[in-house]
Formats: sequence, structure tokens, C-alpha cells
Amino acid sequence: MQHFSFLEDHEVKRIHDASLEILAQTGLLVRNKKARDRFAEHGANVDEPNEMVRIPPEVVERYLALVPPTITLRGRDPKYDVTFPRKLPVVATASSAPDIVDPVSGVTRRATSDDIARIAHVVNELDGFDVFSISVLADDAPDGHFNLSRFYPALKNCLKPVRTSVVNVEEAKKILKLGELVAGSPEAFWKRPFINFGYCSIVTPLTMDFDSTENLMFFAENGITAYGTVAPMGGINTPLSLPGMMTLINAEWLATMCLAQMSRAGTELIYNFLPVFADLRDGAYAPGAIEVGMMNSIVCQMARRYNVPAGGYLGLTNSKISDAQAGYEKSMSPLLGALSGVNFVVMGGLLDALMSLDFGQLAIDNEIACMIKRVREGVTFNEDTIALDDIKRIGPAGMFADAPMTLENMTTATFMPELADRDLRETWMENGSSTIHQRALNKAMAILSSPNHAALDAETDQRIKAHFQGIVAGDSTLPVGWKPFAIGGEKPQRARRQNRRSKKKMQV
Amino acid sequence: MQHFSFLEDHEVKRIHDASLEILAQTGLLVRNKKARDRFAEHGANVDEPNEMVRIPPEVVERYLALVPPTITLRGRDPKYDVTFPRKLPVVATASSAPDIVDPVSGVTRRATSDDIARIAHVVNELDGFDVFSISVLADDAPDGHFNLSRFYPALKNCLKPVRTSVVNVEEAKKILKLGELVAGSPEAFWKRPFINFGYCSIVTPLTMDFDSTENLMFFAENGITAYGTVAPMGGINTPLSLPGMMTLINAEWLATMCLAQMSRAGTELIYNFLPVFADLRDGAYAPGAIEVGMMNSIVCQMARRYNVPAGGYLGLTNSKISDAQAGYEKSMSPLLGALSGVNFVVMGGLLDALMSLDFGQLAIDNEIACMIKRVREGVTFNEDTIALDDIKRIGPAGMFADAPMTLENMTTATFMPELADRDLRETWMENGSSTIHQRALNKAMAILSSPNHAALDAETDQRIKAHFQGIVAGDSTLPVGWKPFAIGGEKPQRARRQNRRSKKKMQV
Repeated sequence: MQHFSFLEDHEVKRIHDASLEILAQTGLLVRNKKARDRFAEHGANVDEPNEMVRIPPEVVERYLALVPPTITLRGRDPKYDVTFPRKLPVVATASSAPDIVDPVSGVTRRATSDDIARIAHVVNELDGFDVFSISVLADDAPDGHFNLSRFYPALKNCLKPVRTSVVNVEEAKKILKLGELVAGSPEAFWKRPFINFGYCSIVTPLTMDFDSTENLMFFAENGITAYGTVAPMGGINTPLSLPGMMTLINAEWLATMCLAQMSRAGTELIYNFLPVFADLRDGAYAPGAIEVGMMNSIVCQMARRYNVPAGGYLGLTNSKISDAQAGYEKSMSPLLGALSGVNFVVMGGLLDALMSLDFGQLAIDNEIACMIKRVREGVTFNEDTIALDDIKRIGPAGMFADAPMTLENMTTATFMPELADRDLRETWMENGSSTIHQRALNKAMAILSSPNHAALDAETDQRIKAHFQGIVAGDSTLPVGWKPFAIGGEKPQRARRQNRRSKKKMQV
Repeated sequence: MQHFSFLEDHEVKRIHDASLEILAQTGLLVRNKKARDRFAEHGANVDEPNEMVRIPPEVVERYLALVPPTITLRGRDPKYDVTFPRKLPVVATASSAPDIVDPVSGVTRRATSDDIARIAHVVNELDGFDVFSISVLADDAPDGHFNLSRFYPALKNCLKPVRTSVVNVEEAKKILKLGELVAGSPEAFWKRPFINFGYCSIVTPLTMDFDSTENLMFFAENGITAYGTVAPMGGINTPLSLPGMMTLINAEWLATMCLAQMSRAGTELIYNFLPVFADLRDGAYAPGAIEVGMMNSIVCQMARRYNVPAGGYLGLTNSKISDAQAGYEKSMSPLLGALSGVNFVVMGGLLDALMSLDFGQLAIDNEIACMIKRVREGVTFNEDTIALDDIKRIGPAGMFADAPMTLENMTTATFMPELADRDLRETWMENGSSTIHQRALNKAMAILSSPNHAALDAETDQRIKAHFQGIVAGDSTLPVGWKPFAIGGEKPQRARRQNRRSKKKMQV
């Protein structure tokens, strides 16, 4: 498989060189004294009165050589641990929307910890998602429990790697304590720390704030899995061009990389961005724009040069509803990333420029994620798959429907969607003329109606509740008043699909 | 720009070699006697009693060397002529659906010649489309006017290249007479023949039928622009694997290529396919499946080996309505093709597995086409676009909103969609909480309400009506009873956008 790419090798090198020049000559504003001291101790030039840090090229290169080529995100159940780069991209849900589309009323409202429990349960069962980056905030969080009210319902209902940000180190310590309680003991937890953090490593342009930088150093010093996301807005805080934005944010990533490696050599990182250009007709934030996917393609080229995992916040939309705009905006940028070789894709569930989660869209995005993985699985090419003997044997005007290759692989040779409608129009109308969003919402709620394999045992849960007085309930329940859309005629062959899917798989 | 590809060079070569083996050993069933004779005269081995034609490898290679590397499709107005391969893919509407979603009632019904006139008018004004492949059939066609009732309203209302198939040579001659009448004289028409034909060159597997083969030879002999589409159904009439389907249809394309070059050396062709796998859970035709885009990627590799333009019937959906499924199915396969280097993309307007056209979807697909072209425009990389001086001058915590680069390129540096919603939720709700389909349908109907720049002059039209007694009216009119969706608050900045768009363009 040959990845798509926009830039020539010498252009990638030019971005690298220009970034080094920015770091050496312009430098970064670093608000955190401990970070400035650390930079100074490790060879950077610090202008203390102006809080400026300038990093010589040889220092950048020295620490770049220390970044591991892979990263591992761990889940409560180790069978869900993911180490990447791997053949298929690792797909995570998108995170930290303030709002949710209420599945019963369809009205957008503030999200709560109960919603997080439900989303965690659904994500645990959707095969396209490898990582649960906690999708929403918890508006009902008690004082002092802001992100605890997010991590607890997430960990309680999902065995896959769970990840989100915290406000500061004090909060991170609470979350790690939660991890110890879930694991049964500090020893058990620290043997395999299954909590993953994110941080906003940079305020573009070229500024490290106090708390995020403190978090970065804390995670690195303690060997806690974490990765940063640089989230520029082109035309506002970066140049209004793709190479210009890339040059600037590459310098920023290199600076955070240095600080992470200075804090602990060998700290795992992702070369990860959420690169959005403003729509300068009216200044709108446009994460659904095609340029987000194009930037990710360039990100993949830079990450390959540095031999670090490439990540991208993709599959975002500006649409408020699950319409055709949501469909194309949420699929085109992940596909562009996938064909460019992205290793880690954040893409599931959000509408309205990261403002709200929709359960139906979450299930639709799962299907998009499966298609993107199908593409990256590639094409198995050998003498069996070119089927020359069959073609010659069956000959002109013949049929392949009963060829052994067809019979053996009939439901595995191509991707079998669960939500996409492929019925004849008449059948579709008889069954209620549903949209994919209605079918998807039914699917998500059906998961909530079925047993929760991820639920914590009562004893462990009791320990957590005893330690964190007043912690939210965190249980996944079917929303009160939910009624599925009436989609008629469950046909016999639909029921058979599940069984067929377990057959031996042949890639085509 | 480095294209995406699935196969290694030696795998492409293996498909080529296997195809040659099929053509030499198995051969094709050729129903047309004139075609068999032509094959025989040019070095193929013909088994006349069994109507079988076998083509030795050296014959295939000899004619392959004669295929021109480009093709030109001509429009009524030469400014719309397109020759490709070119940097950007050439985008055509999808063709020949029997039905249309009535824009007033929303009900799907048989399409008529009036609908074709309207679609032609809309396509003429949508910048994403370069070619109008006639989208629907004309259910009101008088006897003997089947495709005349399609070409006439199309040519009458569209200056871009118009293209569709005809049933037989007799009908082709009628359409060419129509072209002569439109041009003013046979001489004027044949100096620049602006009618483009398609044909289904092969009934897979390995069968050439009578009429399509007769058409192919007629077009080639007379230097009329035409290209074939092979439309296999994997698992039914090809092997159930991507390499297997490719091997078979490559043999088929090579056979039609030979016949075209035997008919007239230097006949322009497109390496063009509509490769769909059946969903073998229930045999459904699944043109919306991701495998269609994957096959097109392999098609692009084969076309590059043969140095001929690569074409693909992409952007299809099984959805009956313009929902999120239509959005992702109609965008993912064209993007996969575009990143794989496709030169000619058929993709606009159809829903329901090529069964119906929808005016709103047509306008949405136009926006998708523009995004795909944006990707293929690529990234302009130079010292200006990496903006190193700006980054160093503006420095940490600075702003780029008033940098000269930003001010000069604010509405050209990124793609500016017309239909995608980027408003804040509050604004979107105040304006009626519209879907993109509602906005798109408004746009299509607004085009029908505005002057028709493409309309034929009255004198020419009179000549046509006099020659073809009883020909359909063919005029584009606003559908009776159309009422736009009320989308409130046309904001001042929206009105300004048009002007801004004319500014100097800088690619980013």
C-alpha cells in the first residue's frame, strides 16, 4: 500500500528546518517556571524576565531521537490494549462536548454523568471504536469532582482504553486514585496503568500555559500514558496557509516533545493535531472543512519523518443534525487521513463543531470507522484472489454465484454494514421509510437495553463510592421514555447475518 | 502529490498478464458478426460456429500502443470542452435513472423530458460539474424519440459537454442530426462534434452483445467521441474478490480497446468502470459500498500502466433519501478515487442505487465535487506559504488575523462552501433549523428561477422542431407550485461572499 501525500521529501525537510529556526530564534513563551528551569537544565536558552525559551537545533534533535516509535493505550481489560502504529488505524471517539442530543426528546441539552455512563456502554459494544475518549462533559459534577464525574462513569461501563483531559495535577491524582480503586490496589494499577490522559500542550502561537505544562511534566515524570493535542485556528493564530500552519505547529509539537523527553527520556507521544482554519467570511470555526483532512495528510508525512505515531482529530462536522452534510464531513477527513497513513483517528459521535454528542451519529460514525479500517486492511493479492482458473473455467456468459470462492466468502469478502440501507425502495417504504439516523439510534438504544458486560462488580464500586463521598451514580440505563422508531419487517436473512459474520475471512 | 495505491507494480503486471492469458485462451463470446470479422481481419482467432474470439497477446499489445493518452469531451460552447488527464478530475453527473424525486411534492415518480431540461439548466450553473451525463430517462418520449427526448432538452439547456448512450446506430444518427441542427450545419457540427456517447461495451463475463458492439464500431469509424463502461457485479458475474474482478474486467476492457483501435487507429478511450459487488446476504446491488471506491483505486493503477485516462462511476448510494448515509456513501468513493489519481468521475445527483435523481442531492454533490477538486489542487509549497517571516515577526501569543497574507487570501485560501452550515446553533435555529438538503433544493430551484444562459435561440430551435415532428418541448421551467423552504436571516456577510470570491486565489 502506497500512502497518499501532498508534499515532496524536500518540502517536509524544509518545514522541519524552518521549525528549528523558529525554536532557536523566536522561541516560546513558557508561563511555567518549573518548565523554564527544566528547559534551561537541558540545554535551552531561557530569557527569564520575558519567560521566553529558545531551543537550539541540536537540543531538539537530541530529544527527538529519544521518542519511542510506538505508544500503548491501556484499557480496564488488557485485551483492549492498543499499541500503534499498527496496520489498521486506532479509532477513538471525539471528546469533551458540553451538550448532548437527548435520545428521547431529540432536544439538545447539557450532558451529564449519566449520559457518559450510557455512551461508555455503547462505545464498549461498537467494534469500530478502539478507544473511548470521553465524549461529553458532566454538567451535574459535584464540586471538586469535575473530571472524576467523567472518568468514573466511563471506567465503570467501558473496558476499552478511556482517555480525557484533566484541569490540573491535583485532579489527575484523584483520577489515578480512582484507577487504583478500580484495579483493586495501587500495585495492581501501577503494574498496568489503564488510565490515559490528554492535554492541550500549546496555546498557539508558541505559548505554553501554566497548568497544561505542569500536567505534561507530571504525566511524563510518572510514566503515565498521555498525549497532547495542538488545536490551532488558521488565519487567526496561525498563517492562513497549510504549509504555514504546519511549520508553526510543528515547531510547537517539537517544543512539547522536548519538554516531555527532558522530563523522562522515552516518554511515549503521538504527533497529534486538531488543525482547523477559520471561515473568514464571518470568522466561523470550521472543523468540518476539507482542509482539516488535508492538514492531517501533511501531519502524517511529518510524523513519518520523525518516526512517531501520527494522530488526527478528524470526522468533525459543523452540521447540527445528522444530515447529508454530517455524512460527508464526518467521513471525508478520516478517509483522507487513512489513505495518508494516519495511525490514530479521533472521530466519533460529535455534531455541531464539537459542541454536542448524538447517540445515532455515534453508531453511524462507528460504521464509517469500520469502512475506513476496511480500506486500510487493503487488498489481498495472490493467485487465489485473482481467480484466473475460475475465470477461465466459468468462461463467457457464465455465473460466479456458485463458485467455491463465492460460497466460502460470501459475507466476509466485502464489508457488511449493519446500518446502511440496501433494500429495494418498495421494501424500504414498507419498513417505514427510515433514515440511517433512526436506524442508528435504535441500535445505540438496543445496546443500552442489553446486558452491560463492562459493568464494575459491586464490591469494587462500593470501595469507590466510600472513598469519593458524593460521587455521581455512573450507571448506564435505558433513557426513560425511549421508544424505538418502528422499522418494520425484520427479515430472516438479517437474523442470519450475525452467524455468517463469524466465518473465515478472506480479504479481497 | 503521491497518489494512494493498493497494489505493487508487479501485481499490476500480474493482472495484465493474466488478462492476456484470458483473452488468448478463453476468449470472448462476440454476438456481432461484423465485429467477429473485424477481429479476424486484425489478427484475432475467430471460432465462427461458437461466435468466440481469442486475441493473441501481441495483437493486444499492438493496439494498446495506439490508444491516445488523452480524450476530449466537447460542449455546445467550446469554452467548456475538457481534455484529460488534467490536474483536476473532470466531474460528470451520473446518468440514466428512470425516476426523479419531484421537487415540489417530494414524491418519487417517473422522470420526463421536462425534468431533463431543468436538470440541464441547473448543471450548466453548478461549477463542480464539467460534464452533463444525462441524469434520467424520459418517460414521455414519443415513439422513435427515446434518446432524442433526452439529448434535445439536454443540449437545449446546457453548454457543457452532454453525454449519454443510445440504443442503436439508427438512434445515434438521429442524435447526430440533432447536433448538426444545433450547430447550424453539418459542416459546423463535424468541425467540432460536441455530442458525446457512452456504451455498455461488455456484458460481464466476457460477452459482447450485438447493439453495443455495433455502436462502438460506428462511433470509432466516424471519429465520434464515445467511451464504454463495464459494469460488473462481483460474486454474480465476476469472482468475489477485488483482484479477481479486476483481472476479468481488465481483459474485457482490453478486448473493447482492441475493437475500437481496429475500427480506427487512435480512437480516444477512457479506462472506465462501474464495479459493484453484490451484498450476498440477500443479493442486493450495493453501489454505495466502500469496495466501489477501492476498486476504482485499482482501476487508476491499471490505467496509469496503460497510459490512458482513468474513469470511475463513483459517488453512488443505496439510500433512498438525502440522509447521512447518502452523505458518506456519495463522498467517500469519489475521494478515494481522487486520491488514487482518477481523471474522470461520474458522481452527481442520483440516489437509490442509480434509480432516482434528486435536485437537492445534485446541488450537494456539486459541493462534494468542489471539495474533491480542492484536494487535487494540492498544496502550494514555497517560502511565501510556509510564512516563516510572519511566524517569527508575529511571535508568541500574537495574532495572524491582520497579517497581509490573511487579508489578501481570506476567502480564497480555503474552500468556501455555499451549502454547508457553519453557523452557531442559535443562528441556525433562528433561521429555521434547516437540513443541507433543504438549502440545496432551494439553491437548485433558485437557478431555475434565474435566466437560462444556455437556452437555444428561437431560430435554431424552430429548425429542430421542424425537422423532428412531435419532438418534446424541452424547456426548463420552474416547477409549478414550488415554494422555497423558509431559511431566515440572509445576513449581510453572506451577500458579500460572492464579491470576495472573485479575488486573487492563493492555494494553501
